[in-house]
Amino acid sequence: MRSTTGWRAQDGALVQAAITRRDLRRDDIAVRVDLCGVCHTDLHALHSHDGGVLVPGHEFTGVVLEVGPDVTRFRHGDAVAVGNIVDSCGECDMCAAGQENFCRAYPTLTYGGTDRHDGTTTLGGFSREYVVREKFAYPLPSGLDPAAAAPLMCAGITVWEPLRALDVGPGTRVAVAGLGGLGHLAVKLAAAMGAEVSVVSRSADREAEAIKLGARDLVVSTDAASVAASRDRFDVLVDTVPVPHDVSPYLRLVAMDGTLSQVGHLGSMTVETLDLLVGRKKLSSGGSGGVPATAAMLEFCAEHGVAADVEVLPSARVGEALDRLGRGDVRHRFVLDLSDLD
Amino acid sequence: MRSTTGWRAQDGALVQAAITRRDLRRDDIAVRVDLCGVCHTDLHALHSHDGGVLVPGHEFTGVVLEVGPDVTRFRHGDAVAVGNIVDSCGECDMCAAGQENFCRAYPTLTYGGTDRHDGTTTLGGFSREYVVREKFAYPLPSGLDPAAAAPLMCAGITVWEPLRALDVGPGTRVAVAGLGGLGHLAVKLAAAMGAEVSVVSRSADREAEAIKLGARDLVVSTDAASVAASRDRFDVLVDTVPVPHDVSPYLRLVAMDGTLSQVGHLGSMTVETLDLLVGRKKLSSGGSGGVPATAAMLEFCAEHGVAADVEVLPSARVGEALDRLGRGDVRHRFVLDLSDLD
Repeated sequence: MRSTTGWRAQDGALVQAAITRRDLRRDDIAVRVDLCGVCHTDLHALHSHDGGVLVPGHEFTGVVLEVGPDVTRFRHGDAVAVGNIVDSCGECDMCAAGQENFCRAYPTLTYGGTDRHDGTTTLGGFSREYVVREKFAYPLPSGLDPAAAAPLMCAGITVWEPLRALDVGPGTRVAVAGLGGLGHLAVKLAAAMGAEVSVVSRSADREAEAIKLGARDLVVSTDAASVAASRDRFDVLVDTVPVPHDVSPYLRLVAMDGTLSQVGHLGSMTVETLDLLVGRKKLSSGGSGGVPATAAMLEFCAEHGVAADVEVLPSARVGEALDRLGRGDVRHRFVLDLSDLD
Repeated sequence: MRSTTGWRAQDGALVQAAITRRDLRRDDIAVRVDLCGVCHTDLHALHSHDGGVLVPGHEFTGVVLEVGPDVTRFRHGDAVAVGNIVDSCGECDMCAAGQENFCRAYPTLTYGGTDRHDGTTTLGGFSREYVVREKFAYPLPSGLDPAAAAPLMCAGITVWEPLRALDVGPGTRVAVAGLGGLGHLAVKLAAAMGAEVSVVSRSADREAEAIKLGARDLVVSTDAASVAASRDRFDVLVDTVPVPHDVSPYLRLVAMDGTLSQVGHLGSMTVETLDLLVGRKKLSSGGSGGVPATAAMLEFCAEHGVAADVEVLPSARVGEALDRLGRGDVRHRFVLDLSDLD
């Protein structure tokens, strides 16, 4: 076994602890984790933690330390990125289609998952080293800042998938509800795809920020006149609001035959069929993506200069990052610098 | 005013009563109502009736009795069909796009609506005469049986719209849940469009019936093995079940990037985002259609010999029809013969 250090859940907080990683299998690489994004999922995992070893973190960049004998795509010293899926069955139709995120046998999650070979619980990227199958690691394109790129691996791919699946491009009118980690990347990606982008926010104060990210304007969801002026306006609305909420007001902003993609809050959702019926609107959801899409997203981001706006903190300040994330006090994604664990 | 006779709600039942119709406006036609389908909406309207004059019925065929001076498309004696919308603002973007069913100022419903000119409550087709703007009446194509065609005007157009909007045709795999008025027409229409059609039903007893309607097979929703064998199989699932129900089992039958269109039960609906997320599935709804789509549907039905399977009853037996509809005891649509009102 390999020894490293990470941030482990204990009594509702994260404490520094020694953890182990498996010895490299033939197709594994060991990654020195340099920078790891802080996702709402981490917050949920910590809040619902009821024992067992939990080390959060599932969007990180780093450098390859060592490779197994069958590894062909990486060498010692390569810059690398890893997201929230680290394995899948590789045999089902979804894996065959490059949608490992929908693996019939369930994909192995980067943390809190069960390793397909040894049955251990996976421990995440809030640690100094990670061991992963090379298939689920991605070369980090040069030109992408490793801190700003880390959040692409979960927040980025999560909004990339619906934007791509819904054919967003020049001429598409896209609205993004919420300007957190997912939302701000959805604005940047949709704008880079050539779409006309608007932000939907509860507060008019976010307008300058929205425009800076690439949006044309802001729809203020708490202002009836602002909402009325944008009724039936958007072909695609990406709803990134991470807490339970009524989607009716957002559906009213969706154009005839348009789609609302719910990627922020996963769970039960109540919808009025009339909100879908009038205008033949559609509701979808999304989260993560497959290997080919993730690779394509990274290439697109490198080409178009898209990455997250981040606030980098030493990993010892992870508690502060989680607290502030819970209050929405971040522009737009916290990234932990794990070098303080050396 | 014109005098006629109809079936009016009173104390939870329908009783024969004298009713009046407006004198013809310049673009009105008077229709002798011969045959009117019995829709679940009629049942709901009767159950929720709390006073006021209610005459149900919104899918009927008949013969033109008289035309206003500006009427150009109809003459005395023409066979005609009318659906659940009899007017709209004519000025909004939806009306301009031929989607009068989504009129911004709300379409005037065939009964229980408010006439846009005199403010009276519209009274439906469970009556011997109806007066309607010619724009919202359709020539009944020769070759369509007037009794079997009547249900096309609500049940038919309601399933036609999602099938068309979702590009159903050769190579599309379509499932239809429920085999009532809407469901049996969805099977016939999708099959006539060239799709591979399956029926989803709670009972294996419906297989022969499903196949007779044009389906290839039956998925038994209460049989885990049958459901498992058809998991992720259908590009489009038209859900016509008219009562509140869990759509999760149906969503599991929808293929990657496919759509479940809920047209049976309109109201609040709870969905698990994970059921949409895994496979990037979509949820939509539908009801009724615009004037161009309704005309196109009638032409398609005449060309392909599609019409409803009906049980025709004298209108005096409307109570029996409603009771049996409430119990699901109909193959597949009741149609009232109004000639007994003469």
